[in-house]
This record gives sequence, C-alpha cells and structure tokens, in this order.
Amino acid sequence: MGLYAIILAGGSGTRLWPRSRAEHPKQFLDLVSERTMLQETYERIAPLIPVQNVFVITGWRYVDDVRAQLPYIPETQVIGEPEGRGTAPPAALAALLLRERDPNAVTFILPADHVIPDEQTFRTALVAASQVANENYLVTLGITPTFPETGYGYIEAGEPLSDANGLKVFRVRRFLEKPILEKAQEFLASGNYFWNSGIFIWRADKILEEFAKYQPAMRAQLERIVSEGFDAASFSSNWGALQNETLDYGIMEKAERVAVIPLDVGWNDVGSWAALFDLMERDASDNVVHGNHIGVDTQSSYIFANKRLVATIGLENMVVVDTEDALLICPKERAQDVKKIVDELKRRKANDYL
Amino acid sequence: MGLYAIILAGGSGTRLWPRSRAEHPKQFLDLVSERTMLQETYERIAPLIPVQNVFVITGWRYVDDVRAQLPYIPETQVIGEPEGRGTAPPAALAALLLRERDPNAVTFILPADHVIPDEQTFRTALVAASQVANENYLVTLGITPTFPETGYGYIEAGEPLSDANGLKVFRVRRFLEKPILEKAQEFLASGNYFWNSGIFIWRADKILEEFAKYQPAMRAQLERIVSEGFDAASFSSNWGALQNETLDYGIMEKAERVAVIPLDVGWNDVGSWAALFDLMERDASDNVVHGNHIGVDTQSSYIFANKRLVATIGLENMVVVDTEDALLICPKERAQDVKKIVDELKRRKANDYL
Repeated sequence: MGLYAIILAGGSGTRLWPRSRAEHPKQFLDLVSERTMLQETYERIAPLIPVQNVFVITGWRYVDDVRAQLPYIPETQVIGEPEGRGTAPPAALAALLLRERDPNAVTFILPADHVIPDEQTFRTALVAASQVANENYLVTLGITPTFPETGYGYIEAGEPLSDANGLKVFRVRRFLEKPILEKAQEFLASGNYFWNSGIFIWRADKILEEFAKYQPAMRAQLERIVSEGFDAASFSSNWGALQNETLDYGIMEKAERVAVIPLDVGWNDVGSWAALFDLMERDASDNVVHGNHIGVDTQSSYIFANKRLVATIGLENMVVVDTEDALLICPKERAQDVKKIVDELKRRKANDYL
Repeated sequence: MGLYAIILAGGSGTRLWPRSRAEHPKQFLDLVSERTMLQETYERIAPLIPVQNVFVITGWRYVDDVRAQLPYIPETQVIGEPEGRGTAPPAALAALLLRERDPNAVTFILPADHVIPDEQTFRTALVAASQVANENYLVTLGITPTFPETGYGYIEAGEPLSDANGLKVFRVRRFLEKPILEKAQEFLASGNYFWNSGIFIWRADKILEEFAKYQPAMRAQLERIVSEGFDAASFSSNWGALQNETLDYGIMEKAERVAVIPLDVGWNDVGSWAALFDLMERDASDNVVHGNHIGVDTQSSYIFANKRLVATIGLENMVVVDTEDALLICPKERAQDVKKIVDELKRRKANDYL
C-alpha cells in the first residue's frame, strides 16, 4: 500500500489576530518554531511519506504561499479551492485524484494548523492507523484529554479492536459536539472520551464508497470537477455549487466501520494566544517572549514584539502581540475574545486589518 | 514696569517615555492639546507679555525645536545652554540680559512643561505677583493641594501680606522637600501648605542682588558669559564651569523677602502618564484615547495609538502608549516606574530608544 498525505491548509483562523490575517492565516505563520505550521505539518510526516505523495489543498489565494513554503511538493499537488466548503469536499477530491494513481492508497487527512510535540509517537500512530485503515476502517486519532476543554468535539470509544503497531484501537461509539463544562468533566473522568483531532486515515477506495453512500451529490459533483480539470472555466462555479460539509458530520458520524486510536502526544490546535503560551517554553519570569522586550515585574505573559521595542511594567497573565500595523493587548483568560475584535473590524469594514 | 517671560525649556523628562525622548522631551510634545506644552506655555502668557519680551532658555540641541515651535520669538531671545545646570543659572542669565534693556523689568520664570487649565486666574495671579515683585519681593505661585502628593515640594505660608489684584499674598515661612505621605496628609489638612510650582516672579535688579548675596561665584561667571557673548569659543567651557543649582535651594530658601500667592487653577506638571490621564477628558468608557483604538471591555485607561491600530480586551486602569519604535504597557498605578524602563535602556546603552 502507498501512503499519502492530504494536508488541509484552507483555514482562516481569526483567534490569532493580529498575526493571523485573512491574507496570511495561522497555518502560514511561524508560531511555535522557526518553521511555519504548514512546514511543521509536512516535516512531521516527511519521514513516512515521500514528497511525491503529498497533496496540499488550500484556498485559491494561498496557493502561492503554499508553494513558497513547501517548494518541493509537485506543483500539481497544491490545489486551490475557489471557496471554502468544509473538510469533506477536499478529502473526497483527494481520494478521487488518487483512485487511478494508486487504488490501494491510504491517505492521511492532516489539518495544517496543529502542534504535535511528540512526533515519534504521532508517526507510530499514523502507521497503526494505516494498518487499521487497510482493514477497511475509517480511522481517526483521538487525543487523550488533559483538562475538561469545552472548545473541542469529543469521541466516545466503544469496544476494543486488535492493537495496531503496539497501540490500542477502539471502535468509535459516537462523535460528540463541544460539550458544556459539566459534560467535559464527566468525559475527562471516564477515560473513555477523546478530543476529536480532525486527523483522519482511510483508504481512498473506502472513503469514496462512504461518499457514494452518504454524500452522493457531493461525490458526483467532485467527479465532474476532476474530469473537467482545475483549469476549466467551470471549476469555480462547479466548486461553488458544492454543499458545505465537514468530514465529522458528513461521513464519520454516519459511517459504520469507524475506529479511533487514542494518542497522548501533547497535541494542540493553537486555538488562541493563551493556547500558544501553554505550548511554549517559558523564561525565568514564566514569560514567553519573542523579540525586543523589557519587562519590569512582568510575569506569565505572552509577549510578541515585532520590530518595535515592547516595554511592560506590572503585567501578569497578559497577551501582547505587536505587528506592523496592529497591536493586541488582553488578559490570557480573555484570549478567546480576540474574535470580538475581528468581528468589530468586519463591522467597520476595516479590511486592511483583517 | 515692563513684564518679561523667561520660559525654561531645558528639561528632559523621562517619565513620559516612550513619547518623551532625549531628542524630543516633554515640553515639545502635544500632550494635552493640538499645541505642544511649550506653545501652551507661551500662549498662556501672550495676553500679558509682548512677544519681544519673551525669552526661552533651553538646551543647545533644542534651540531649533524652540524656534520651529515659537517662530515669532526674536531669534536672539532663544538661548541654548551647552549643558543643564539647574534653574538658577538661566534665571540669573535672563536678569543680566534684561538689566540694561529695562532696569525695572519684572520677569516671570515659567517652566515649559506645565498644564494650567484656568488660564484667566493664572494671568490674574501673574499680575498680582508682578505688583508684589515691585515691592521687592521674590514671589512664587503656590498651588492649593488637592491630595497628599508626595512627589512635589511644598511651601509653608507665613503671615499674610496685603492682597494683590484681588488675591491673597503671604510671606513664605519655609520651602519643604518632597514629604512622606503622613506629612503630606498633614500639609493638606492644615490648609497652610502649597505645592511648589517652580514659577517665580521678581524684578531683574532684585534677583541679581540676591545672586550677588547668595551665589556670588555663579553671578560673576554669568557676567563673564554675557560680556563675552554666546558666540564666543569660551561659552561652552564657561557655562560648564557653573555650579549646578536650583532657584529653590540656591536662592529662595535663603532669601528674606519671599512671598507666595496661593492659586487654585488645576495646575499639573504632567509628571506621568497617569497624571496626564487625570487631566484629559474621558470618553463614555472612562478612557482617554488618542488614535485608532478598538476596545472590548476596556475602561479607565489611557490609550495612545500612533499609526497602528491598538486593540484591547479587558483592560482597566492601564496605560498603553505606542510610538513608531517603542511601546509601553503598564497599570496606571505603576506609571512612575516608567523611569525603570528608561534606566534599563540606559544600562543597555539602547540610545535609539532614549
């Protein structure tokens, strides 16, 4: 079997504003290392998957960014969606493209904006997942929760299947929406629930069967797109006619042979500046500092200085992110409210800052 | 009698960093209005004093700034000190320059970095002070304290003298250093103590007598400087040889005929960003905002945005000052500690930011 990576790099995360912008979203930023999240995503699977087997599906306007950041990926394997239609269409599209090239292809669907510190274990899990996928399962990686997060969906594990590559594997009982805190606490306590990572592994032929069953219109429309080609004048309108659908809703919750491999790899989707702070190494004052900073009595804060000197006095648990044209200051515990700033900018039609 | 203003514009206030810089200190900034503090200082006395009678004594490197900001003042009346030597030398220098031009000159010594909202009452006090000065008193304006400030010197009033221009006048009993809080509270309660404004009014011939008595070496040195002229090669070394001395210590505390006119005019020396906040008009969220700001749950804060958008969430009682190359963030109650940032910049020899 051939292994293939389908990197989904079409997101436009706003919770990391002002660094993440519509023209330059999260996955193209060097948030946690010298490399961008997209580059990290590729490097993480590079030991498993030859570069000729890597596809990146992104927004049309980001195709050049992807090519610049991952110049070794064959040009025709960087595909620009005319508009975002959720995760289901690009995953099915990739399966259609692989169908003729490698009927036994096992594909890893990998969002481009995750941080996974323990890469070795992650790759072990991908190999395990590819083995389970070869038994005609749709496989997902479930992250062992470390706190009662209410911002993620959860996966409830069912009966155990055979171990794969030394890792436990379970049937999925059900997918659960973002829970209220009490529910999340129950999930955490039970040990039987895992965060939905959005990482999926399946054979191309298997997922195409599932699309035929549960999303027949979408599959037919995608067949049309592939046969007409991405250069066709009709591409944009054909794509626009697709229904917006996620893999979770559109396929995984409906399908029957679904497995989850629990994983404890320090996974983080960097959903906010506070989440990024939690990921990073602290200095002696428990700060995470990038750039030119002078702190007096400044603790447990995330400071991103761009070119300017950032001087802080008496800050604790704060986020300061300075960019060329915009500056954000907020307590870490309000980091989710960055969305409110972005909403206000949209209301003001202040597109330069979006 | 002719009235003359001697504006002292040589300060290099650091507590308003990062806007106030060594190359562009507080008095040259438009902190409270469209006009700079120097311009405000001049405009405030312009109704009383013809422009030909206004002198500005500043640092050498600021002469061009003064001329640019006050272009109507005769060029020869903008005098650049080679180095700062306290307030005593420039005041005596001005008196020497006026001695021949107008032996009865009454001079107002006016720091260039004060805010005085009630200008009408202030000018009434200057006229009163000029009358008292004509009775051979050294006169100072004492600001009625509104809280137990520990950052100012105080003046204790003694026996009352005759009213002048409708205002009370007292002999000065003594000048007091910056007090501890308990003392400041006593001063406030007694009603007999006033903040030392650093504004002085006297006849040129009278102050020269006092310098002859209490600062004879300084006076002799200044006579030499005036006779040799400010263009002389010797100016810089002659000036450098002067002792560092303030009017308060060097003259006022020693002299005998010293009077104070109490004044309640909303005076403020803008000694910190918090002091500036207190001066300014607030918006509906009790913020003082300059420039492009989006605030979510942001209250009672001072926000100075330069060119960048400043977005804040959940801030209360904070100071944010953004400039081209440096950004300050601190709680208002820590505004005095801006000095620590400046000290650290000096330690690092980061002169670009000083």
